[in-house]
Amino acid sequence: MKAIGLTIIPIKEDTMITISLDIGGARLKSALVENGLVRESAIVPMDSSNGLLASLPILEAEVLRLSSIQMPAMLGIAFPGLVNPVEKTVASANGKYTDAVGFAFEEWAMQTFGLPLIMENDANAALLGELAYGCAKNCDNAVMAILGTGIGTAAMIEGKLLRGKHFQAGCLGGHFAIRSLSEGRDCTCGSRGCAEAYGSSWALTQLAKESPDFATSGLAKAASINFRSLAKWDAQNDELAIRIMNQCIDAWSACAVNLVHAYDPDLLILSGGVIHCGARITEPIRKAVAKYAWTPWGTVGVLIAKKPEHSVLLGLHKLCVSETEGE
Amino acid sequence: MKAIGLTIIPIKEDTMITISLDIGGARLKSALVENGLVRESAIVPMDSSNGLLASLPILEAEVLRLSSIQMPAMLGIAFPGLVNPVEKTVASANGKYTDAVGFAFEEWAMQTFGLPLIMENDANAALLGELAYGCAKNCDNAVMAILGTGIGTAAMIEGKLLRGKHFQAGCLGGHFAIRSLSEGRDCTCGSRGCAEAYGSSWALTQLAKESPDFATSGLAKAASINFRSLAKWDAQNDELAIRIMNQCIDAWSACAVNLVHAYDPDLLILSGGVIHCGARITEPIRKAVAKYAWTPWGTVGVLIAKKPEHSVLLGLHKLCVSETEGE
Repeated sequence: MKAIGLTIIPIKEDTMITISLDIGGARLKSALVENGLVRESAIVPMDSSNGLLASLPILEAEVLRLSSIQMPAMLGIAFPGLVNPVEKTVASANGKYTDAVGFAFEEWAMQTFGLPLIMENDANAALLGELAYGCAKNCDNAVMAILGTGIGTAAMIEGKLLRGKHFQAGCLGGHFAIRSLSEGRDCTCGSRGCAEAYGSSWALTQLAKESPDFATSGLAKAASINFRSLAKWDAQNDELAIRIMNQCIDAWSACAVNLVHAYDPDLLILSGGVIHCGARITEPIRKAVAKYAWTPWGTVGVLIAKKPEHSVLLGLHKLCVSETEGE
Repeated sequence: MKAIGLTIIPIKEDTMITISLDIGGARLKSALVENGLVRESAIVPMDSSNGLLASLPILEAEVLRLSSIQMPAMLGIAFPGLVNPVEKTVASANGKYTDAVGFAFEEWAMQTFGLPLIMENDANAALLGELAYGCAKNCDNAVMAILGTGIGTAAMIEGKLLRGKHFQAGCLGGHFAIRSLSEGRDCTCGSRGCAEAYGSSWALTQLAKESPDFATSGLAKAASINFRSLAKWDAQNDELAIRIMNQCIDAWSACAVNLVHAYDPDLLILSGGVIHCGARITEPIRKAVAKYAWTPWGTVGVLIAKKPEHSVLLGLHKLCVSETEGE
């Protein structure tokens, strides 16, 4: 059949250029993103103890710098705490940039740059980024655990990011109690026994220094106690390092099983600083999920984030695209 | 204004009569339900170790007895395991009625009674029943924990029962790991450290008998170790009974905090056999949720089920009504 009287116009995807800002405790990641590709990115030091308001000039300089390369249509910001994506505010900051709570980000973005804004929790953005442009395209049922300075989590169920009434469903997997509420370790969130209190950078230092064999451990010689130094001494058969690493792995595994039990996904995506430790941590987590998660339908796949450095930035871009498309 | 040429017909809700069957490990609850009211109900002994197929005559006798009172439009069945509500099958039975997995309930209901069927996990049905006809009408964001022979949980988010891809999201809160996966107590589900392995009837007997002071505890004199005898000796300051009760409360509290962190509800509804212990258990759980759950928006309400004996039966009725209305 021939089309008669019709001009056939080839379909071309609209070009969408956005700026993403990923606010971290010690650094700001920024990027100019075009159609799911990071065109330009930077990492700028930032200090959460200075608060957010004092750090705004850093954010502003980055947006202006990236805008001068190409004018974006929207701005996306990821924050390491509980975010209200409708009001575009921070609901709770858990010690990082506490003055961000109540700050009018949307007004600031419009007045400073003339740009519309989307805001999201950082782990939620990372999951969206990996599902849109990373390790698990076309997966509609996935959870993510970002293991590093803290534990960030997110859940997508049947193609929709799980948010919940107060926008905190899915985000708080790091604060699942995996030990006794009365005898577990204190967490920064105010609870006890949280996964994060057993498997995060901040817990690591405490766990090491309070151990009776700390003085004789290689960790005592490390310039700073972090997952890099832990992995190094663990590989050298340092007893304390091995013990702490195993304790972290147990905490991450419990968190992973709980994420599977809570959200019923096909996939668990692991990301964050500790995935550089490789199979030493990813294989035990994979095995724990296969062995302990109650999934009569099959086995949850465990994947490593494809773009761990950029998944938050890409997820913010995806949110901008979705908002523009009215999804 | 007057209606001209129109006959005004008073709106009358359609009468909907259904039969509900709540299959438990030791008993079957059955009811004839009319518009959210239980008209006739019964409890019949059943033994899960006999399997489901051998128990079908018990189910059939109850349906026929209730049908003879008034003919129902639908049949609803609740099962204490993972249920596929679309295929109307049991996906996993965790030791109870293991031969129910794969049984064609829909075909059986149609061939035996000529009735269309809905099926649901028992905790999911209980939450629906309490939200439709019980303690929290008009609440759209709630979780439920049924504490008794096991721990059953369910979650409603923004007015929809959370099911997940394989219909097991929300149901598995009793199998959140609240202790180490490597050192926690073995659970019947195949995992370790589950909440249920520390706070359920089956765990109770193990916990008591393996305690070094069991022989000198009042529990050793009890005809059987259950929450009734535990509560009795706990009230009489029996040291072991107090210790086990506190351990159960710690497990339920961790489960409750995890449900809040997972599903972001306004309300937690408690039900199951142990709520007869009253404030001794409900107050510590309420306090733990208020103290340990990270909810910057306010405090999660903790309610006791209004119709704990009937909420599963009523929830099945609600599902029948919803299915008829095409919700």
